[in-house]
Amino acid sequence: MFESAELGHKIDKQAYEHEVPQLRESLLDAQFDLAKAKKFPVIVLVGGVDGAGKGETVNLLNEWMDPRHIQVHAMDAPTPEERERPPMWRFWRALPPKGKIGVFFGSWYTGPIVGKVLGKIGGAELDRRIDEINRFEKMLTDEGALIIKFWFHLSKKAQRRRLKALAKNPRTRWRVTPTDWERFRLYDKFRRWSEYTLRETSSSTAPWIVVEGADERYRNLTVGRILLDALREGLSSGMPQAVVTAPPPPLRVDNLNVIQALDLSQSLDKRDYRKALEAYQGRLNLLARTPEFKKRYSLVVAYEGVDAGGKGGNIRRVTAAIDARYYTIIPVAAPTDEERAQPYLWRFWRHVPGKGRVTIFDRTWYGRVLVERIEGFCTEADWLRAYGEINDFEEQLVRSNILIAKFWIAIGKDEQLKRFQNREETSFKRFKITEEDRRNREKWDAYEQAVCDMVDRTSTDIAPWTLVEGNDKYYARIKVLRTLCDTIEAAL
Amino acid sequence: MFESAELGHKIDKQAYEHEVPQLRESLLDAQFDLAKAKKFPVIVLVGGVDGAGKGETVNLLNEWMDPRHIQVHAMDAPTPEERERPPMWRFWRALPPKGKIGVFFGSWYTGPIVGKVLGKIGGAELDRRIDEINRFEKMLTDEGALIIKFWFHLSKKAQRRRLKALAKNPRTRWRVTPTDWERFRLYDKFRRWSEYTLRETSSSTAPWIVVEGADERYRNLTVGRILLDALREGLSSGMPQAVVTAPPPPLRVDNLNVIQALDLSQSLDKRDYRKALEAYQGRLNLLARTPEFKKRYSLVVAYEGVDAGGKGGNIRRVTAAIDARYYTIIPVAAPTDEERAQPYLWRFWRHVPGKGRVTIFDRTWYGRVLVERIEGFCTEADWLRAYGEINDFEEQLVRSNILIAKFWIAIGKDEQLKRFQNREETSFKRFKITEEDRRNREKWDAYEQAVCDMVDRTSTDIAPWTLVEGNDKYYARIKVLRTLCDTIEAAL
Repeated sequence: MFESAELGHKIDKQAYEHEVPQLRESLLDAQFDLAKAKKFPVIVLVGGVDGAGKGETVNLLNEWMDPRHIQVHAMDAPTPEERERPPMWRFWRALPPKGKIGVFFGSWYTGPIVGKVLGKIGGAELDRRIDEINRFEKMLTDEGALIIKFWFHLSKKAQRRRLKALAKNPRTRWRVTPTDWERFRLYDKFRRWSEYTLRETSSSTAPWIVVEGADERYRNLTVGRILLDALREGLSSGMPQAVVTAPPPPLRVDNLNVIQALDLSQSLDKRDYRKALEAYQGRLNLLARTPEFKKRYSLVVAYEGVDAGGKGGNIRRVTAAIDARYYTIIPVAAPTDEERAQPYLWRFWRHVPGKGRVTIFDRTWYGRVLVERIEGFCTEADWLRAYGEINDFEEQLVRSNILIAKFWIAIGKDEQLKRFQNREETSFKRFKITEEDRRNREKWDAYEQAVCDMVDRTSTDIAPWTLVEGNDKYYARIKVLRTLCDTIEAAL
Repeated sequence: MFESAELGHKIDKQAYEHEVPQLRESLLDAQFDLAKAKKFPVIVLVGGVDGAGKGETVNLLNEWMDPRHIQVHAMDAPTPEERERPPMWRFWRALPPKGKIGVFFGSWYTGPIVGKVLGKIGGAELDRRIDEINRFEKMLTDEGALIIKFWFHLSKKAQRRRLKALAKNPRTRWRVTPTDWERFRLYDKFRRWSEYTLRETSSSTAPWIVVEGADERYRNLTVGRILLDALREGLSSGMPQAVVTAPPPPLRVDNLNVIQALDLSQSLDKRDYRKALEAYQGRLNLLARTPEFKKRYSLVVAYEGVDAGGKGGNIRRVTAAIDARYYTIIPVAAPTDEERAQPYLWRFWRHVPGKGRVTIFDRTWYGRVLVERIEGFCTEADWLRAYGEINDFEEQLVRSNILIAKFWIAIGKDEQLKRFQNREETSFKRFKITEEDRRNREKWDAYEQAVCDMVDRTSTDIAPWTLVEGNDKYYARIKVLRTLCDTIEAAL
């Protein structure tokens, strides 16, 4: 969930100063049109890690926008008047009317998340509050509201760095209080429960947008552009109902993303590979044969990746380590007639493994947010809701002790071309290259975007994505084997 | 929630035998069209109280429909194979494909409700399961499925009667086991948690249909007609997406409903009225002044009713009992511009009372499912989702110790006419009668249906409706005052 926001996004000063004037003008125009049309209200939530620029962003919005049509609500501890009423009352009172923008600095998320982190409420109460929030936001979007939820994130390292820097500078030292350091000690807990809450409340009509908070210019441009796009989209669709079905996926404002950040040059020489292969295959074999695994657990391995990324060979190195009676490979191609007559996830549910078994999916349920999204095989509404449905699916698996390992095998564009050409030359591999592969290659950038969105929205604590640098097949195979061993070991 | 299903609905043999052949033929036709079009699957859930005809209904469907296109799943205890996988796996496996009907006798509701009643799971786990169910059903309807959820209900009295009758008859004695009587002892608990679960899962796209189970002929006709209507509606709209936005509200197959069942002849003579008025006003005054009420509670009184039903006079008898500093009357008319720019419930949220206060709404948030529904002031989708939104709203109030008393003041059609004529004659009351009142009178039946639907879907344990027989104003006033006293007393 937070992978994309730990990459060290940065915008240089020149690029920033070049873009900002135009962006501000466009934002003012959009705000003016919004106020004139009075078709829907805009609700902006600002939440996230301390020190990740929440306050600065609120100030920025105040500065960039027309103050007559924007209202900032800093939601601190409730007043006595508010305490006498249901917790949501204060937020109802502060809702912006149609045509206006309401910014909530501290929102209906603050209480539940902070409460859970400080141990004031239990997991069950958190779930109840999450459910209440989901119903509330669904009501808002059903009523036509445009909801934009920003979550400002800093990695643990970046937060420590920031606190230290502030403390060192005499002019900012006052900003770092003992409470800040106390909170910092709760970072991991805060991160875990934020991730959980964000996952459970990232609906297709009001998804969270996670913004890396370290670089001010990056933060500002990201927020400004997303806000502008959402406003424009809402205004042009005219009907508030249509506004809410298509919030823009997070934009990239620099060229950095989780795929670009991979170091594809990583490799293993043949000798090291042989040794590691033997070691990890042996370890995996033992792990899969432990009585505890066989009795209580099972494993789902999900392979996705760029065409010609080497999935097939990678899978064979995994299956070679497991007793053939205990694994199943499910190659996922176009759905059968029978599968087409069922809800999308049905074809994957049918292959959920029993205890002690390993099921390997060669392509997966993520097809919906990858190929189906890009080729237009399903509607935008369909793939947008798929993120939540997939998270639900995986949560149910994990809840019944099914371990999940998800691999994206990435290779570079040049490497792919080389492999395609090799295949053409090697006659026995020729069947593998099709016109479709070529067309997919033309959609390289669209796929990259889709993969980033997928990782942002479905890489969770309970079922994280492992991105595998695949230019070197040896390196990729060992990384997968090691991850599988670690996954089982962590559970036992 | 169960009010309509405790009225003693009955169909006589002649009417039944007259209708059934035609109904069966239409059902077969619809089923044939469904199978031919293969546009969407139909998922029928059969749940409810033991002995309320669940099994008989399943048999009936098997008998009436073409067995090639219907599949019944009696979901008993899970098999070992099923136990190894997530709880929902068995249901995924059994989902009907497009064009077919799947009947679930025992469904994803059985485990959570029975588990809670028997104390095997706690309230938090029940809530989690409910949330999971809601996401699952939303996914199904998003995928185009038509879901029809029948809940067969028997009042406690009717269930006892039925068990006794079965036990008495030598031919059916075997059907009553000690387990049945044991379960009967859990009736109240079962009712409470069923009601809770039904309320939390009655979505606008998959609402529950509660069917009184006592009379076989009534039960059969109700199920048959609802199924037929839903199929026809789904098939004619063509697009599965449209199917799910408009499930039919429960039909009346006899002329009995909660409004018709009222005995409007009830009355009080002036002398008794005076005495009772004094007594209850005094009691209410004391109750509203107790320190505990003032410190911890508040009261919301919601008045709805037929035009000329006597709301105004009734309200005055209540306010006369309360210190004027502590109550507020909110007359609800057409929304202001400011209110129109907000979500529907905003105008009511703003008047939520603080501690120790009483807020009386003269007409309420139920306008959406009454006048707005009937006059077409909002779309069908809007008023359908309003039931759930209203239940959420009231649950939040109750959760923060706000007591809710909801009154529907009913008068007969003749009585209304008489009062209208009186008003015309009494010049100082003339301002009260408008052309609109006359038009509403023409929509009498539509209102009656809307009121019944409202009671079915929003009369809950935590915020029940009180239907007030209003032909005699004295009687109505005392009933309201007594209910208010009881409501506060029950809380203190």
